[in-house]
Amino acid sequence: MKLSKGFWQTFKETPADAEIPSHKLMIRAGLIYKEAAGLYAYLPMGLRVIHKIENIIREEHNKADCYELAMTVLTPGELWHESGRWDKMEGQMLKIKDRAGRELCVSPTNEESVVDIFRKSINSYKQLPVCLYQINTKFRDEIRPRYGVMRSREFTMKDAYSFHLDKKCLDDGYEKMFHVYSNIWTRMGLKFIVVDADGGAMAFSGAKTQEFQVVAEFGEDKVMKCPECGYAANIEAAEGHRNLDFNTSGDLKLVDTPDKKTIEEVAGFLKVPEHHALKSVVYSSITGTEEEFILAMLLGDDELNEIKLKSYLGCDHLRVATDADFKRLDIPVGFIGPYNLQKGKFNVIYDREINMDAAYVIGGLSKDKHYMGFIPSRDDKNIQTADLRLVYEDDRCAVCKKGTLKEIRGIEVGHIFQLGDKYTKSMNVTVLDKNGKTVNPIMGCYGIGTTRTAAAAIEQNNDKDGIIWPVAIAPYDLHFVVISKNEEFMKMAGEVYGELRKAGLEVVMDDRNVGPGFKFKDADLLGLPLRLTLGERDYSKDQNFEIRDRRTGEVKKMKREKLVQEIKSWLEQKRAEEKKVSKV
Amino acid sequence: MKLSKGFWQTFKETPADAEIPSHKLMIRAGLIYKEAAGLYAYLPMGLRVIHKIENIIREEHNKADCYELAMTVLTPGELWHESGRWDKMEGQMLKIKDRAGRELCVSPTNEESVVDIFRKSINSYKQLPVCLYQINTKFRDEIRPRYGVMRSREFTMKDAYSFHLDKKCLDDGYEKMFHVYSNIWTRMGLKFIVVDADGGAMAFSGAKTQEFQVVAEFGEDKVMKCPECGYAANIEAAEGHRNLDFNTSGDLKLVDTPDKKTIEEVAGFLKVPEHHALKSVVYSSITGTEEEFILAMLLGDDELNEIKLKSYLGCDHLRVATDADFKRLDIPVGFIGPYNLQKGKFNVIYDREINMDAAYVIGGLSKDKHYMGFIPSRDDKNIQTADLRLVYEDDRCAVCKKGTLKEIRGIEVGHIFQLGDKYTKSMNVTVLDKNGKTVNPIMGCYGIGTTRTAAAAIEQNNDKDGIIWPVAIAPYDLHFVVISKNEEFMKMAGEVYGELRKAGLEVVMDDRNVGPGFKFKDADLLGLPLRLTLGERDYSKDQNFEIRDRRTGEVKKMKREKLVQEIKSWLEQKRAEEKKVSKV
Repeated sequence: MKLSKGFWQTFKETPADAEIPSHKLMIRAGLIYKEAAGLYAYLPMGLRVIHKIENIIREEHNKADCYELAMTVLTPGELWHESGRWDKMEGQMLKIKDRAGRELCVSPTNEESVVDIFRKSINSYKQLPVCLYQINTKFRDEIRPRYGVMRSREFTMKDAYSFHLDKKCLDDGYEKMFHVYSNIWTRMGLKFIVVDADGGAMAFSGAKTQEFQVVAEFGEDKVMKCPECGYAANIEAAEGHRNLDFNTSGDLKLVDTPDKKTIEEVAGFLKVPEHHALKSVVYSSITGTEEEFILAMLLGDDELNEIKLKSYLGCDHLRVATDADFKRLDIPVGFIGPYNLQKGKFNVIYDREINMDAAYVIGGLSKDKHYMGFIPSRDDKNIQTADLRLVYEDDRCAVCKKGTLKEIRGIEVGHIFQLGDKYTKSMNVTVLDKNGKTVNPIMGCYGIGTTRTAAAAIEQNNDKDGIIWPVAIAPYDLHFVVISKNEEFMKMAGEVYGELRKAGLEVVMDDRNVGPGFKFKDADLLGLPLRLTLGERDYSKDQNFEIRDRRTGEVKKMKREKLVQEIKSWLEQKRAEEKKVSKV
Repeated sequence: MKLSKGFWQTFKETPADAEIPSHKLMIRAGLIYKEAAGLYAYLPMGLRVIHKIENIIREEHNKADCYELAMTVLTPGELWHESGRWDKMEGQMLKIKDRAGRELCVSPTNEESVVDIFRKSINSYKQLPVCLYQINTKFRDEIRPRYGVMRSREFTMKDAYSFHLDKKCLDDGYEKMFHVYSNIWTRMGLKFIVVDADGGAMAFSGAKTQEFQVVAEFGEDKVMKCPECGYAANIEAAEGHRNLDFNTSGDLKLVDTPDKKTIEEVAGFLKVPEHHALKSVVYSSITGTEEEFILAMLLGDDELNEIKLKSYLGCDHLRVATDADFKRLDIPVGFIGPYNLQKGKFNVIYDREINMDAAYVIGGLSKDKHYMGFIPSRDDKNIQTADLRLVYEDDRCAVCKKGTLKEIRGIEVGHIFQLGDKYTKSMNVTVLDKNGKTVNPIMGCYGIGTTRTAAAAIEQNNDKDGIIWPVAIAPYDLHFVVISKNEEFMKMAGEVYGELRKAGLEVVMDDRNVGPGFKFKDADLLGLPLRLTLGERDYSKDQNFEIRDRRTGEVKKMKREKLVQEIKSWLEQKRAEEKKVSKV
């Protein structure tokens, strides 16, 4: 593209709502345009990146015998009613009635559609396994869209769905997709980490699920990694242990704690460490029309991981209990505890980090009262334990029990998931097995945020001047800056541009009538892998062109006849280096 | 793709709602899947066709310095309010409120979005002209979606928008797009015709607009073409004349026409030819909140072309007058006419085919009464004329006045259009011209129905056995049918499959465990350009493979070592032939 005739412009202003580098840079470098909250158009320069990302994804999926299809963006409500998700998706799902009064939604995901296609197409184990994928528009009506295309409402996603006769076959397919995914980010030259994810209520027991995260300083996701054994998990799913002292003796007694409500206040007043007190957290757990109160017990200085609690309960929604709930339960806020609690009213769950044989301070169920010396194994019947706590950096690894967890920031760009028979059962899909018996096939699903990947790549690759594109997904290979107002000289530059393009290079030629400083700034902001400079004054001295590496700043000078070969091999070398460092 | 492992199946049943060949064949050949009324998924085999169509479109646009971007599928209501189209689009526009109560729609077209992007990006004539395009999902909530993907509700479209400083520049850009479009269907190997289209209320006076139609027997559109001068126009826009005798004398008199209402009845009763009577058609024309009654006068045996009337009036909507309207106007149904009509109540327009100096029979404004001898130039003041009639085959060409029009059936796959300043004015977009003055740039828009093109290609290329794909957009090049149950032999076939693919050929290999008849039927139904057959029995006799041309039925036998070269040159030859016949 010659900039004098093309469509590309940079913007000086950083948008007011942009909090993270990728959002600022994508707007400033003219890659995206905000149409409304959470709605971004991809301008020509940005769309080239998306297409490169999509092509890599497509090629790797095709290699693994996945077949691309395109489901509709709007899907009929009846399919979602069939699976039972029409009412479960809450506000994220954009629902519409068409002019004939039929329910539709702008698809947030497409399990229902693919299962519908599958059941009309396949009826025998002989046709299994099969993996279908699409790269298509999705919509999730985020309450607070932000971070540009990182958390937009409309976005494109690659979603793949595999169908299998049995768990062994699903495991093989899952493993295959694990490699497809690893290849994808390796080819893109992005550092990534694979972490255990929270399966949520979607997975069956024992289902595998992992996230692929692009490592980045401002990543939204916290990942815990054990340097000893390599265990890595999203903080939502991470398990870790603490090394704590316990007080294992003590009589149970009710004590006065005037005006002391928080763990910090109570522990300070009673002169015990916070982890010798238990925190009581009350939630309402909702499934369908049923509601139940949950009392989650945690060490005083631990925090509840809501996602773990929700997964453990398998409920539709969780909400924190309100003052109105406490009033209705007739328990003063700040003084609830498990002892002498009317058990029928609550489902009490102890975090497994609590030592059941140790003595703890707990709420006294009356205003300004707490119990000391509460020993769960002695003072509570029917103890139920689960992993409920948020892990922290320096927790002991729950897998090898040796290393201490370290926090890494990442951006979730991929998620692979064993779904089991959730959808094939609810949507009544069967195939015949070898014995002619009908069985529900089991499924895996595999997602990649394609537009999100572009933003993640920038989060990982930028400096104060702008973006630093990995070669594989850069919008163009080369930024050709020409500095001259001489017509003759510009003609020569145009010939060079033609030669480079003829050699298969993707070139942006800056032939605009603006100053060199402006051109260099724009080139750095856009961040193509290499910059080629041809200045009339310098060239007249030694007939040299200058090539500069955007990432390293390395500069080489050379004659016109060497340009094509040198640029090509430099790009190849960069591409190879970028691939090498990809897996963390 | 090896069919034993891939995802493709044909269907025996023709869907009940399928009326035209392409709809039936796309379902039966496993190209598309109906998710709901007007919502079709593209199965892997069908999506390959769409991708080939998209790539041709993309390449031709890029060659012409058009830049691809991707606007959002959901667009904010505020943009549509700004242009004034939010309320004008009627039921076709699917409108939604998001969870924050903001208006959105599933875009039926994207003029507003592209103008919004343009005005934030470009402010000087120096950056003009520019042409931006996208290939993206659209939604129009058709009341009666039908013909499969030909008139579906969700569809993909290439929509391009050009911006220019003046009419001369717009004309040049329009001309350039004309050639881009011609190249596209020529490359696809589809016979097409370019016809004058109705510009509707969107165009400015003198705006050019043309449709590209793929010629097909069951085409929805009627095209009128003059074999003498080459004039071709959509029937909505076509102009033609009749050669008629006129009765130019007569006194005006009111006559009884008991129980005679239709032209046929009245003319028969009064013993005059139907074209010596005038037909009076009453419409209500609505613009914004204003409504006006229109009396359109036509020769007795002509039909009104509603689109011409609407374009002429430039109104928002037209509706046929109802019995209630007639009651309100106090005129008996069947007896309205222009003579003595309370003019304030009606806007009377005479079709220009009426001879203003000839005598006609018209309605008498009273039950069972008609006037004879009505001569418009004598008996009506303020005569207004316009071209209002539908043309018919054998009408005289309005351009060369020599030829007679012939009807051709086509499918509209492309439309190019000079928009003028409609959107830049309503959305207040300006650029600075050479003198530093702000002006509204003018626009062109250019659409191609990408999914529709696939259906149109099939309408044009099919026989009783199935589809006959042009090489350029066939899902694969070659259908490789292997007939054997011998493992050794199948291994050899697999090697050949590998060799063909290595040579860059796109091959479907039918290695399924089904009979040869089944395989041949499936191959004919899918309709890849060439079929390669390897039968164990035949091969053992003479070591020959058989290649068969799907279109001509021509068969060649040859040895393995010649396959790649022969298939490649055969495909090239077919491709060249298909390009040759493209323009009608």
